[in-house]
Amino acid sequence: MYEKVLAYLEEKNYSALKEMLSEMNEADIAAVFEDLPQEKLPLVYRILPKELAAEVFVNMESDTQEFLIHAFSDNELREVLDELYVDDAVDIIEEMPATVVKRILQHTDPETRKSINEILQYPEDSAGSLMTIEYVDLKKYMTVDDAFTRIRRTGVDKETIYICYVTDENRKLLGIVTVKDLLLSEKSEKIFEIMDTNIISTTTLEDKEVVAEKFQKYDLLALPVVDRENRLVGIITIDDAMDVLQDENTEDFEKMAAITPTDKPYLKMSVFDIWKKRFPWLLLLMVSATFTSKIIQSSEEALQAYVVLTAYIPMLMGTGGNCGGQSSTTIIRGLSLGEIEFRDTLQVIWKEFRVSFLCGITLAVVNFGRLLWMDRVSVLVAGVVSVSMILTIILAKFIGCSLPILAKKLHLDPAVMANPFITTIVDVMSLLIYFRVASLMLHI
Amino acid sequence: MYEKVLAYLEEKNYSALKEMLSEMNEADIAAVFEDLPQEKLPLVYRILPKELAAEVFVNMESDTQEFLIHAFSDNELREVLDELYVDDAVDIIEEMPATVVKRILQHTDPETRKSINEILQYPEDSAGSLMTIEYVDLKKYMTVDDAFTRIRRTGVDKETIYICYVTDENRKLLGIVTVKDLLLSEKSEKIFEIMDTNIISTTTLEDKEVVAEKFQKYDLLALPVVDRENRLVGIITIDDAMDVLQDENTEDFEKMAAITPTDKPYLKMSVFDIWKKRFPWLLLLMVSATFTSKIIQSSEEALQAYVVLTAYIPMLMGTGGNCGGQSSTTIIRGLSLGEIEFRDTLQVIWKEFRVSFLCGITLAVVNFGRLLWMDRVSVLVAGVVSVSMILTIILAKFIGCSLPILAKKLHLDPAVMANPFITTIVDVMSLLIYFRVASLMLHI
Repeated sequence: MYEKVLAYLEEKNYSALKEMLSEMNEADIAAVFEDLPQEKLPLVYRILPKELAAEVFVNMESDTQEFLIHAFSDNELREVLDELYVDDAVDIIEEMPATVVKRILQHTDPETRKSINEILQYPEDSAGSLMTIEYVDLKKYMTVDDAFTRIRRTGVDKETIYICYVTDENRKLLGIVTVKDLLLSEKSEKIFEIMDTNIISTTTLEDKEVVAEKFQKYDLLALPVVDRENRLVGIITIDDAMDVLQDENTEDFEKMAAITPTDKPYLKMSVFDIWKKRFPWLLLLMVSATFTSKIIQSSEEALQAYVVLTAYIPMLMGTGGNCGGQSSTTIIRGLSLGEIEFRDTLQVIWKEFRVSFLCGITLAVVNFGRLLWMDRVSVLVAGVVSVSMILTIILAKFIGCSLPILAKKLHLDPAVMANPFITTIVDVMSLLIYFRVASLMLHI
Repeated sequence: MYEKVLAYLEEKNYSALKEMLSEMNEADIAAVFEDLPQEKLPLVYRILPKELAAEVFVNMESDTQEFLIHAFSDNELREVLDELYVDDAVDIIEEMPATVVKRILQHTDPETRKSINEILQYPEDSAGSLMTIEYVDLKKYMTVDDAFTRIRRTGVDKETIYICYVTDENRKLLGIVTVKDLLLSEKSEKIFEIMDTNIISTTTLEDKEVVAEKFQKYDLLALPVVDRENRLVGIITIDDAMDVLQDENTEDFEKMAAITPTDKPYLKMSVFDIWKKRFPWLLLLMVSATFTSKIIQSSEEALQAYVVLTAYIPMLMGTGGNCGGQSSTTIIRGLSLGEIEFRDTLQVIWKEFRVSFLCGITLAVVNFGRLLWMDRVSVLVAGVVSVSMILTIILAKFIGCSLPILAKKLHLDPAVMANPFITTIVDVMSLLIYFRVASLMLHI
């Protein structure tokens, strides 16, 4: 695709380019824009048919959008803005520097500007910031036929028309009617006869992660957002919920690898930005690892008597870290999917204890054999390493399963209690266990 | 909720229970069923209004479904099956033991049975296994009015009616019409005049992860599935795509923590099952760690001359593991979101090199100071540790970023190249670096 666009540009064959682009999907065209040299962007953008242009614009990365806005004339900017849904406009504005925001707001019509400003006031992670105010509202005494008339008259600008919201004169949400209900009902039936009053809704300040979970749990296409007085203020559509779900997953992956989350794609970030997201955690973990050197220093005597013990420290710590990481990842994911709750704590710990016992025995047996027959160490040393391994694994899995639950209870993000953090704690504990077992069994 | 249900059951106040349940959402009722004692399940299930009952059934965990199927009379089973969409029936069947499957298939009508059997033949991870065959199909010479008549007549059993598919006499897919298009068009217009022929579709054997990505990229509500001759065989709806997305994310989390993925919820898994998913990886990683003990054993001399060096092995290895884990997580996620491609390899490596250099310098400086002023080691020893740290970090980030890309290129899952695996490799490399630097700087 991209090569073809470049070729047409080279040949200045703009009519062929226009024809090709107008048959492509907006998301695919936006992807081509990301790869084009910047100076070509305004030219290619102007070639696009007007309605398609706005849809392509929505799909671009924010720095491409910003570049184009700078290149737009006031008229062009106004044309794009007229085509945007309010929630998309808000998404774009949230990523722009203040001067660009000002220019955008200057060129939107007063009513839209008011809506944009309202949505911008909601916290970044709230349902309010995700919603659009463009929905179809119906009244309860309308007939099905009236409803269709209203949808036909107002539907063209709405993000979804398939789910309609029935409100009273104070904008209070009374019920929900789908277009499927409308199509399968008699034309003379009244809306209140067919509307569903068992409404699943959310409030403006609800966490957007909870919103995304609702979509998944209840298989929704759209979710109404109400204020404290149950007045309908907007709706959230499933495409936004799906994006939230992916963003939250990415955030969890990053936190679990000890990286400060960001919503910028990797290739668009500067080296300095990446460094800022990573080194504070590395520093914290490195400093925490100080305990390990202290423990080893204080056991110097034992180590000089049995230098062979040193050789198994990395294996022991590595296995402990892997065991703890397995447990913490399982529990963190279970918590975030709502499969595990605080009341399950004891059940989880008991389960992990039995699993860790099984894992410990399995690994210790293999390890004991390997040390005896391959490394040819004494039975006592092999015993010290193997017993330490069982205890380390049990402890690692206990820490790995309980810390995320504890974090959740303390309203911290369990995802932070993942592999790197658990490993650092388990490293210290496994050394303590190792030297204690060694001193008991080897009498040093 | 759950307590209320139990209380009503205790009081045998079944009419109040029925009233309460019939006002709840099916997903919430299904959650109550998961918590109820098994012997109460059939009783409560029979209290549910019939249509709601089938919807609740779909939302249950598979072992609860299986228990209920055993408790059902043939008539009850038939009633539930009649209400299910074909794709939901297939999902249920895929989780059941053979005897239950046989009983289910005996009680479905012949046509549905045929469809179920067809879908069951597709590989588990394919688009075919996700699809439903219940969609609205239109012909190109129909008018908008004809289309509405057809939707009204056939729509009640369809999973979605909002997107209709235009096919020719050979079932070849010609175009797509949304109900929004239909509502906003004149009643006398012909379908071929308003249909969108720029179709995004998938094939029966496509990987379901790719399917889910298409939903997200193109903001779809449903995706048509065609065979090799472009004949429409079914559609996939967004609720299933969203489930796939979450399942794939969970799988990635598990693989990245060295756990064999499973789609069973943690609390429903037996201790033995959990052990089977975890210990093979632990064993593999433990055995790989053998190299570390070999390296330490072969450097015993150096260690006896400078026992202090031992104390910093865990910190060095831990930092290396954390650095590698950061890089591999970032790259794995970027690959799975399609933000990073193979052609970006050199750019990624160059970026990671610069980031690792910055991280290395930062950490080494802090570390050097701490070792000198707090641990009071000699400048030479502090130098050995700090230089080793910089080199370890650079190497760790190189391995962390390149292995996932390499895995992807070799058609392996990059997610396996995560923290535990990277750590094991980095452990070995960091020891080699450490002892090499020590022997060069300390002349041992």
